[in-house]
Amino acid sequence: MKGLMMDYSLTVTSLMRHVEAQHGGSEVYSLTVENPAHRTTYAEIFRRCAKLANALRRLGLTEGDRVATMAWNDYRHMELYYGISSMGGVLHTINPRLFPEQLQYIVNHAEDRFLFSDPLLLPLLEKLHGAFPTVEAHVLLCSREAMPDSSVPGLISYEELIEGESDSYDWPDLDENLASSLCYTSGTTGNPKGVLFSHRSTILHTYASGLADLISINSTDSVLPVVPMFHANAWGVVYSAPMAGARLVLPGPKAGDPEALVAMMNGERVSKALGVPTVWLGLLQYLEASGKKLETVTSLVVGGAACPRSMMVDFAERHGIHVYHAWGMTEMSPLGSVNAPKVTTAGLDPAARLEQQLSQGRAPYGVEMRLVDDDGDELPRDGKAVGRLQVRGPWVANRYYRAEESALEDGWFDTGDVASIDSEGFMRITDRTKDLIKSGGEWISSIELEDVAMAHPAVAEAAVIAMPHERWSERPLLIACLKEGESVDADALLAWFEGKVAKWWIPDAVQFADELPHTATGKVSKLKLRERFAAAA
Amino acid sequence: MKGLMMDYSLTVTSLMRHVEAQHGGSEVYSLTVENPAHRTTYAEIFRRCAKLANALRRLGLTEGDRVATMAWNDYRHMELYYGISSMGGVLHTINPRLFPEQLQYIVNHAEDRFLFSDPLLLPLLEKLHGAFPTVEAHVLLCSREAMPDSSVPGLISYEELIEGESDSYDWPDLDENLASSLCYTSGTTGNPKGVLFSHRSTILHTYASGLADLISINSTDSVLPVVPMFHANAWGVVYSAPMAGARLVLPGPKAGDPEALVAMMNGERVSKALGVPTVWLGLLQYLEASGKKLETVTSLVVGGAACPRSMMVDFAERHGIHVYHAWGMTEMSPLGSVNAPKVTTAGLDPAARLEQQLSQGRAPYGVEMRLVDDDGDELPRDGKAVGRLQVRGPWVANRYYRAEESALEDGWFDTGDVASIDSEGFMRITDRTKDLIKSGGEWISSIELEDVAMAHPAVAEAAVIAMPHERWSERPLLIACLKEGESVDADALLAWFEGKVAKWWIPDAVQFADELPHTATGKVSKLKLRERFAAAA
Repeated sequence: MKGLMMDYSLTVTSLMRHVEAQHGGSEVYSLTVENPAHRTTYAEIFRRCAKLANALRRLGLTEGDRVATMAWNDYRHMELYYGISSMGGVLHTINPRLFPEQLQYIVNHAEDRFLFSDPLLLPLLEKLHGAFPTVEAHVLLCSREAMPDSSVPGLISYEELIEGESDSYDWPDLDENLASSLCYTSGTTGNPKGVLFSHRSTILHTYASGLADLISINSTDSVLPVVPMFHANAWGVVYSAPMAGARLVLPGPKAGDPEALVAMMNGERVSKALGVPTVWLGLLQYLEASGKKLETVTSLVVGGAACPRSMMVDFAERHGIHVYHAWGMTEMSPLGSVNAPKVTTAGLDPAARLEQQLSQGRAPYGVEMRLVDDDGDELPRDGKAVGRLQVRGPWVANRYYRAEESALEDGWFDTGDVASIDSEGFMRITDRTKDLIKSGGEWISSIELEDVAMAHPAVAEAAVIAMPHERWSERPLLIACLKEGESVDADALLAWFEGKVAKWWIPDAVQFADELPHTATGKVSKLKLRERFAAAA
Repeated sequence: MKGLMMDYSLTVTSLMRHVEAQHGGSEVYSLTVENPAHRTTYAEIFRRCAKLANALRRLGLTEGDRVATMAWNDYRHMELYYGISSMGGVLHTINPRLFPEQLQYIVNHAEDRFLFSDPLLLPLLEKLHGAFPTVEAHVLLCSREAMPDSSVPGLISYEELIEGESDSYDWPDLDENLASSLCYTSGTTGNPKGVLFSHRSTILHTYASGLADLISINSTDSVLPVVPMFHANAWGVVYSAPMAGARLVLPGPKAGDPEALVAMMNGERVSKALGVPTVWLGLLQYLEASGKKLETVTSLVVGGAACPRSMMVDFAERHGIHVYHAWGMTEMSPLGSVNAPKVTTAGLDPAARLEQQLSQGRAPYGVEMRLVDDDGDELPRDGKAVGRLQVRGPWVANRYYRAEESALEDGWFDTGDVASIDSEGFMRITDRTKDLIKSGGEWISSIELEDVAMAHPAVAEAAVIAMPHERWSERPLLIACLKEGESVDADALLAWFEGKVAKWWIPDAVQFADELPHTATGKVSKLKLRERFAAAA
């Protein structure tokens, strides 16, 4: 027997309608190349979404067609988010920092019909546009006046594209299971894979991320997503901040510039900000060097890679900012867990509480987790057993775009992470499956070693990779990048590990590097480190 | 083109699985007849849900069958909530305070197969069980030892029913659109009407109610639903508190006893409590008389009827407790709006902020509101235009149980309320459609007059009803119930209105009453007042 409740589709379109009715006046700040402090409102953004939709309909866009963006976090990118999905198109956000061959693969694999690019990316577009045969029109995200000279045929400005259009559009009633957006994961091996989000998965993820123990945005917040909008929808904030009616602060091309971030945070009275550890490490160092303070930020959400212990402690003790450790992946829309305190944490002593805070946190309703061993047998949730982390839920991918095969094993998605889960549901990633080091038949966690290394006062960033070893099969190699003006030699740094990890875990050697290579999503590229140091070995 | 995300049903079953994995250790306190402080955990409750499901399967329960409860807020009632819905049955919560004829109508209309009753309701059951021919078995919510003598054939205790059963159950994968629970609205006219909730509507409502600006429960909260579990699922708290992992404090039969409530609130360190104004008025008066303090409560959610201004002010100024005004109805699962501050409220002066706080609040994503005039034309959201309030969304009923016709008009559900909505989305109920007073062709709001009367220091509770009038067609009559030890005469009370409302709104007369009649859901019964005073006129 079916319930007798309204059949109401969970769609980006209905979210837009909600925000327009309830929070139309909330402000969106953007830093763009044209304007260091552009201010608009959700209502105005949605009016321009209607103009955009009319323009795209004029160009022949139909339901399910892919429209690509290569853009920073700003209001025009947000218009593409809402306008394209709400009219039934598929928003395809592209990471412009990928290799040109990857960009070419992605655009052709997605068969994007239109490509909207930031003016700063024009040099890239100049080189690549010929390799994008499916793209019928190129649009540059700027005003007509700001249009640079270009060899890209027919290139027009975004403002010119939409200026003559009506600011009303008869938004369709879409089925919630239709695709709303597409994002490729930049795997370290093989071709990128496309994750095709639905309207339903997007809205359910937005609901969950708004819960009190998740990102928990309310209307009085001012939210700064440093995490790019091309990276798993800026962890959903482009949806969750408007749903709550919060103010959005969008850093444009300045997301990697600590000085600009601090100015924005204080000037725009940011209460919550989200980003990867690399960004926050840079910010911490800048705060230390400049003596500046963050005046209004109360919490940071850190995800995309493990949060170093020292960073969490420094933010809390020196700046009074609580760091929420979060974990997820593009295939999970991306939120999988957030580390919010539990009633059971109240009684913990500070050291144990910090230990718990450093774990990747706990899953909201909508994400089920399990650990399995190599035979696929489930492992206990005792905080000790370590196994492959598998997930399922309404915002988890079940198949990659245009893949023939399911991405699931026995109904579960394998995250590629190795983790433990304790009896209170706190999950701790111990490694990526492929980054584990197998020494003498036993596993060594590269993440744990990196965490110890980064707690050393002279170390800015560190990575550990496996080196082939005749006797032990693999042994850990530490690669360290020192803070400016600091020094430590290899022996002293290795001595730092004593008493902190098992003796046989201590790396065999240290290599110093001026900086560590990062992937396009801001994680340390172990692939590049392996190439470089394997060659050296 | 469909998205490629997992097909994952939003069900009470999956919520139970989540709570078990993530928050199994969180405590549930109950006050029952047998035990003034019963303590258990979610994990233990779910183990007993499995025993219950096994027992019901043994008795022949199949998918879609209705199982009725007449019970207070306690852990056994919670086991019925999760156990029945999760196995595919339909939980039918009955308000035992309804008239016997209504109870008879409801049980027969729902064709309940089983009825679980609180021992305190045995006298009622003794009288009525013969009028429930569809009920195959009666269960009393107590231990075998606590079973009273009874003439109800085959009556067994809950504990006896489940004691021999296995505590594991192979919970089915249910379609999210299946019915999960049923609740009849006790309309003031005609027969009660059944609202048939689905698993999907229940879960979506739970997500929304957990948002930062809604009920916003987190794991460290201790939550006291004074609102009964037979009244629109205790406003969803039986789902939202476990989803967040919060502690639940269930007052059993003591929900109307201010002394017991204060003891429970302080003893169980309650942070948030939810209930109707009548309960909180009683609590305020008790606090004033006893000199006691609420030590841990930070906020109250008030709904079910309009929150009097004086109550909101008293809680804030004398007790430091923020009152969140909420609005909804059974047909809306029930949450329609909560009054949380907006970024735009920050600049208001205290008087204007209080004014805004007294409105019924703003709709979350998932509730769309519109105002229409008598011709069905939409009215502006300007805070001035007043019209019929209509709603739509995924947790709004589209048809009553076993009704032939849709409950909708043009795709919208008419709430029966008359309201305005301002440009910031704050909705203000000015009256029930049927409670409006039409005087000389113009509308007078009974709610606004009641609010003025209740602000008078001598008035405990007040109601305004329309009296037929030869010249003006209707005129307002004020019925007032005074605080113990206070006095005011009719002229002085009417003089109190001068300067506070338009002259022609001031009631023509006052009737004093020792107490006001309330409906089974705690609202002032205007129907009874009309019967009583129309006869007097």
